[in-house]
Amino acid sequence: MNPLPFELQAQDGDARTGRLTTPHGVIQTPAFMPVATYGAVRGVDAVDLENLGAEIALSNTYHLHERPGETVIEGLGGLHGFTGWHRPWLTDSGGFQITSLADRVKVDEEGVTFASALDGTRRQLTPESVVEIQAALGSDIAMVLDECVPEAVADPARAALAQARSLRWAERARRSHVRKDQALFGIIQGGSSPALRRESARETAALGFDGYAHGGLGLGETNDARREAIYEAQGELPAARPRYLMGLGKPEDLVRAIGCGVDLFDCVVPTRHARHGLLFTSEGQIVVRNARFATDERAPDPNCDCPTCARHSRAFLRHLLRSGESLGARLASLHNLRFTLRLMERAREAIARGQFAALRDEIIGLADRRLG
Amino acid sequence: MNPLPFELQAQDGDARTGRLTTPHGVIQTPAFMPVATYGAVRGVDAVDLENLGAEIALSNTYHLHERPGETVIEGLGGLHGFTGWHRPWLTDSGGFQITSLADRVKVDEEGVTFASALDGTRRQLTPESVVEIQAALGSDIAMVLDECVPEAVADPARAALAQARSLRWAERARRSHVRKDQALFGIIQGGSSPALRRESARETAALGFDGYAHGGLGLGETNDARREAIYEAQGELPAARPRYLMGLGKPEDLVRAIGCGVDLFDCVVPTRHARHGLLFTSEGQIVVRNARFATDERAPDPNCDCPTCARHSRAFLRHLLRSGESLGARLASLHNLRFTLRLMERAREAIARGQFAALRDEIIGLADRRLG
Repeated sequence: MNPLPFELQAQDGDARTGRLTTPHGVIQTPAFMPVATYGAVRGVDAVDLENLGAEIALSNTYHLHERPGETVIEGLGGLHGFTGWHRPWLTDSGGFQITSLADRVKVDEEGVTFASALDGTRRQLTPESVVEIQAALGSDIAMVLDECVPEAVADPARAALAQARSLRWAERARRSHVRKDQALFGIIQGGSSPALRRESARETAALGFDGYAHGGLGLGETNDARREAIYEAQGELPAARPRYLMGLGKPEDLVRAIGCGVDLFDCVVPTRHARHGLLFTSEGQIVVRNARFATDERAPDPNCDCPTCARHSRAFLRHLLRSGESLGARLASLHNLRFTLRLMERAREAIARGQFAALRDEIIGLADRRLG
Repeated sequence: MNPLPFELQAQDGDARTGRLTTPHGVIQTPAFMPVATYGAVRGVDAVDLENLGAEIALSNTYHLHERPGETVIEGLGGLHGFTGWHRPWLTDSGGFQITSLADRVKVDEEGVTFASALDGTRRQLTPESVVEIQAALGSDIAMVLDECVPEAVADPARAALAQARSLRWAERARRSHVRKDQALFGIIQGGSSPALRRESARETAALGFDGYAHGGLGLGETNDARREAIYEAQGELPAARPRYLMGLGKPEDLVRAIGCGVDLFDCVVPTRHARHGLLFTSEGQIVVRNARFATDERAPDPNCDCPTCARHSRAFLRHLLRSGESLGARLASLHNLRFTLRLMERAREAIARGQFAALRDEIIGLADRRLG
């Protein structure tokens, strides 16, 4: 049984729009997944996410494993029961978080051993245990454990080793995955080597996953290198399965990848930028903390339909952020999330109408415009 | 012209319920004012406050004077335009905040001189300038500057001096108040001395204000002493004008004061308690961070109609607060504010039905019940 029917509805160049059906609801693609690290987006509730138009959210297996632990969450009805977000969940495998957050990380063929950032205890995650944890979390889409090697971008030999190991781990994850109402995605590695990417994709696809993710990108490679990495991999992937670009979320990165045929995205950029007062708008980014906005009574983005822009001015947002009021981060996050989710809506409509190139060029053009 | 029509609708013992009409809307009393120090309640938006049933909010003149400054706010349409909260605003005079927050405070007959907590510059506030600042802020109700002397509770001689000075300041404030669409309240002082309270009330009332506040209470006096202070003052105040008890907000304190005929309240307790994980419920307070709630799937208060209780469990709230997720403070604040605002609704209904004593006793009984 395939838990993840995916119906492609329109194609425009390589960009495509479709409907992905999960146990907890339908996701229209291209889709953006807000990041709810501990089961909650910073300052943003499940009800807010629904109102903003999110159809799927992502949570971090590593963080939830450490606190409150998957057993607690399973006992409370899995992520859906625990968090109050009743729409689809995707959980990552934790591999990337361990290598970037934990101490004394040791990677060997068995898995990843590390000192918990919480209490210093020695813990191990393996391809099998990561599948088990995600089964307990009850996400709609689980990810395999991969070996994340940031230096792989620059070091093809290191990239080749990590890619080969990730593949062996993927096979172990695939075998240990038994939960029938949960999809499992494979992850393509290979640094910035087109040949490794192609090989990784071909062999991962041969294992047969419900979807495929591009891993280890957004680490400093050029736009051209990233596009080539995506295309090389996708040449080997079944077109009928969803494709997910992990961890990138700037508007220009999103439209570039959608143009290559990517269907799913997640990123902390909309909320992290928001906390720093950096807002996406239809006229370019604004740094709303800057003095020039001190008496600016306009909405953050006059063309936006988010609750923040409906009610508040740039001057008020600046005042809240400068005063350390947590409401500032919340209002800015609601705006940036809505901007990103609306960009996905616009992309889907543009693809359906065969006009995606114009939207892509508009958004890439905004990337260079920084107002204040 | 009286900017603040006040229609008393029912009385039950000394408790009373009425309708206070301000330039920005009607307030049903008894009413609780959430505290929006910098123009925003911590983590809670104007839309949230409306949905929770708040009819008036309080903001701190001292904080707004320091940041962003009343000139900026006036230019953006006053507090209503600046903050997006379009219902009535009350602003305090800043006196209490200066003495508790600023450095190198010096009080003389002219006013209060202090070093700004923001940039260290020497500033002075006088009875006249505080009226001017609040006129620029455009609140519906302004407060006179009073001399706040925490030690007055224990020192009648000190209390007498502060009371006399506060009275002279009140007269200066009254004279300098020219904004016709803004009410001005006097403040009763006198520490815990019934005679001073009576004298302060009589002479403040003789100046003729739109309403009267009990100041300098909630500083350690017994319940009996507070009740006596309130009654002594109210014996000298016109019954047809609203009475406001400043800075108290625990449920038991609210019902006790309502029982004495107080109409208006403000306090940071609901939101501050919330940030520390202390929740008011219909069965007593719960300390939701405690381990016993780790797997408790019940709503914080199963009898509550707030958005937090509609969607989230004690276990999730505990998890968010322990993980340092700002959403935890927000969800807990929404709950405690709703509890407090609903208590006001229940008080108004109980007074109208002549059954207030039962509600008061129920709430006082809860004060001793601390679950977990």
